[in-house]
Amino acid sequence: MVIGGDAAGMAAASQARRLKGPGELEITAFERGRFSSYSACGIPYWVGGDVSGRDELIARSPEEHRARGIGLRTRTEVTEIDLAGQRVRSRDLAVGTEEWTGFDKLVIATGARPRRPAVPGIDAAGVHGVQTLEDGQALLDSLATSAGRRAVVVGAGYIGVEMAEALLNRGYEVTVLNRGEQPMATLDPDMGRLVHAAMDGLGIRTVGSAAVTKILTDDAGRVRAVATDTGEHPADVVVLGTGVVPETSLAGAAGLPLGTHGGLLTDLAMRVRGQENVWAGGDCVEVLDLVSGRERHVPLGTHANKQGQVIGSNVGGDYATFPGVVGTAVSKVCDLEIARTGLREKDAREAGLRYVTVTVESTSRAGYYPGAAPMTVKMLAERRTGRLLGVQIVGREGAAKRVDVAAVALTAGMTVERMTALDLGYAPPFSPVWDPVLIAARKAVAAVRAAG
Amino acid sequence: MVIGGDAAGMAAASQARRLKGPGELEITAFERGRFSSYSACGIPYWVGGDVSGRDELIARSPEEHRARGIGLRTRTEVTEIDLAGQRVRSRDLAVGTEEWTGFDKLVIATGARPRRPAVPGIDAAGVHGVQTLEDGQALLDSLATSAGRRAVVVGAGYIGVEMAEALLNRGYEVTVLNRGEQPMATLDPDMGRLVHAAMDGLGIRTVGSAAVTKILTDDAGRVRAVATDTGEHPADVVVLGTGVVPETSLAGAAGLPLGTHGGLLTDLAMRVRGQENVWAGGDCVEVLDLVSGRERHVPLGTHANKQGQVIGSNVGGDYATFPGVVGTAVSKVCDLEIARTGLREKDAREAGLRYVTVTVESTSRAGYYPGAAPMTVKMLAERRTGRLLGVQIVGREGAAKRVDVAAVALTAGMTVERMTALDLGYAPPFSPVWDPVLIAARKAVAAVRAAG
Repeated sequence: MVIGGDAAGMAAASQARRLKGPGELEITAFERGRFSSYSACGIPYWVGGDVSGRDELIARSPEEHRARGIGLRTRTEVTEIDLAGQRVRSRDLAVGTEEWTGFDKLVIATGARPRRPAVPGIDAAGVHGVQTLEDGQALLDSLATSAGRRAVVVGAGYIGVEMAEALLNRGYEVTVLNRGEQPMATLDPDMGRLVHAAMDGLGIRTVGSAAVTKILTDDAGRVRAVATDTGEHPADVVVLGTGVVPETSLAGAAGLPLGTHGGLLTDLAMRVRGQENVWAGGDCVEVLDLVSGRERHVPLGTHANKQGQVIGSNVGGDYATFPGVVGTAVSKVCDLEIARTGLREKDAREAGLRYVTVTVESTSRAGYYPGAAPMTVKMLAERRTGRLLGVQIVGREGAAKRVDVAAVALTAGMTVERMTALDLGYAPPFSPVWDPVLIAARKAVAAVRAAG
Repeated sequence: MVIGGDAAGMAAASQARRLKGPGELEITAFERGRFSSYSACGIPYWVGGDVSGRDELIARSPEEHRARGIGLRTRTEVTEIDLAGQRVRSRDLAVGTEEWTGFDKLVIATGARPRRPAVPGIDAAGVHGVQTLEDGQALLDSLATSAGRRAVVVGAGYIGVEMAEALLNRGYEVTVLNRGEQPMATLDPDMGRLVHAAMDGLGIRTVGSAAVTKILTDDAGRVRAVATDTGEHPADVVVLGTGVVPETSLAGAAGLPLGTHGGLLTDLAMRVRGQENVWAGGDCVEVLDLVSGRERHVPLGTHANKQGQVIGSNVGGDYATFPGVVGTAVSKVCDLEIARTGLREKDAREAGLRYVTVTVESTSRAGYYPGAAPMTVKMLAERRTGRLLGVQIVGREGAAKRVDVAAVALTAGMTVERMTALDLGYAPPFSPVWDPVLIAARKAVAAVRAAG
């Protein structure tokens, strides 16, 4: 039995079905919404018009899952998990009836829910989250009927900056309200500043240190402005990009172990700690950060898919593990690419690590090759050992995926010294003769030595 | 003392100068040509018109080196190395005088020389190599004066395909004559076939299994056609992309150790084996292939720069090593990107390894995201251990540099199983939710298991 019909849940169901036929394993999955296996990460591009329609974001529909022998019940919400009785209670949202269904093995993939600022007016018409396909459709409908062209995005993380781009593409005048000083708090502030400057250049107004205090509405109850402690920002539409928290209310009520970020805690096989027959994966779990050795909440479709795959293998009688993450994330605002992996300075300090940082400016191609685009690479390395701790990259074309090199190096526990000798692809259209990541590594070696 | 004023030699000189001032270390460098520290890899793009002028390819001119305290003597050819006497004989090519100069430490960076087919007519007007800036200029002059628009490129390796693109960009009708069956023998033939098909699509005619037997000339002694054992190919200009061999005649004559590929053999600090005070780097050396454990000749600017840096550190009293390569190379023909790292099937067999191969088709971005381009990834893994042995990628935008992930994994000796859990950057504009390299790794895991 699977709770949640999106990436983790359906990847688990599909993998288990690959390993065991319907005669060996019955699979029931409950999904609150109408859709299954869709790319929530694609919603900003649908809203922005890069992706033409909702259905393009759906990897596999409920009908397709059912055709593969997975009993997926949409519009059906699980309201209680009875672990001792090995059963869950569900409500059919269409007709309102409830029932109990038994399970031998349970997969919890309840995802995450948006963090909504608890301020007056937050539920007004014209204020939108962008977590589900329903949210995306509601926002598009709202854009179609909005009187003016002023948009306010609350939050300047991945979703915030992606939605700023989307609204800009739709012809809106965009203001991003950010609690922190710089956008992209997943980067160090010095790198966030580069994003800020680029957003300015794109005509996206970013207001830092701006905590939302109230949503102001017109007589019809529709948003007309967003108030912060420092001023009011007129808005015909408001998008919330204020992050998500693990949706673990059911699991918590059932007494399952939750971590400091509110996510379920599992072992490396994605089995919930202390449980024999309960697995969990996706945005509702915490994962091990292999660099800091701590648990983190990293709601990303790519992890959800991998974890689902691992769960499905184990539930289906095979064996697989999800060893953890190194914290890789990539994004973009128009043509500005933003990437990070490993620890920020703040993370390193919190983990008790002493480190050095270096920042280098380079280009995506040989400097003389047309289209060579500037790129800033920041690297953190541990003092004494020289172990790579993290990389952040902000730049144009070709910047984001370069962070993958550092992600693999982190996974392998490489030192920056060892990285200087990495045999990375070189040809003038693809890289300077010293790849920007290697230039940073060389500089980091010197910094480690100088720090003693 | 440095012999050779290009990437390896001048990187060594520059790094040594950074560590030791002119009062501590005198640096003399001999360079046969007129230029120093230039990007030979950029020549195809200069010929093709992507790069506007020769000077753009020069990273540092002789004057700039001299201003940094390096006694660079251009147009001066070393004609003999006297190891016992710790001196070299050089000839000033302008005036013809010879002299002996003593050294305490010697750096050999004599590069490579083109492999020219030993056929009648090979020295005819209109037949060009593209190894030096002088070669590039001569080819451009030849194009400016050629009567017709038919070009023949001999060889279908990196330089051959890049020159085919360059000549196409210049409006030529291009025929590529290839000794092997498929272009890009640095790939397995099944991947080379994809390059062949793409070249066909671009209007570049590729003739396989075509060994050149003769260059035919007109009455003025200018090339008019290239003859192979299967036919004649009319040509107004001919470009040789037939590869290079280490230029080690001086070193060989001095009794220094050469490997099976004709390159100098060094230790990991880039010191010539058996020598106390002689170092060598760049296209004239063989390097350790970390995957096969064998020596290879890999003439690439990026290695030359790294090796030069290592030599300069060691000569300058610091310490550094060049541990070896994993065989990464990237290239492109128009918008087709070509990349490889690690072993081909042939290499694996020659190294005595048993392996499995898998090939997957994927895309550079999420399938629904505009611009998602197809990509074919082939992966080799060792039987039993599951160790990654090699990756080849052919595709469009974003394909080439993806091979870097595999290059780092090879360096770390990762298994394909471990690779499936790599935390690579994911966002719809940059990758499908399963990165193509991860999809290949998953399939390789299954293949290793199936092979037993």
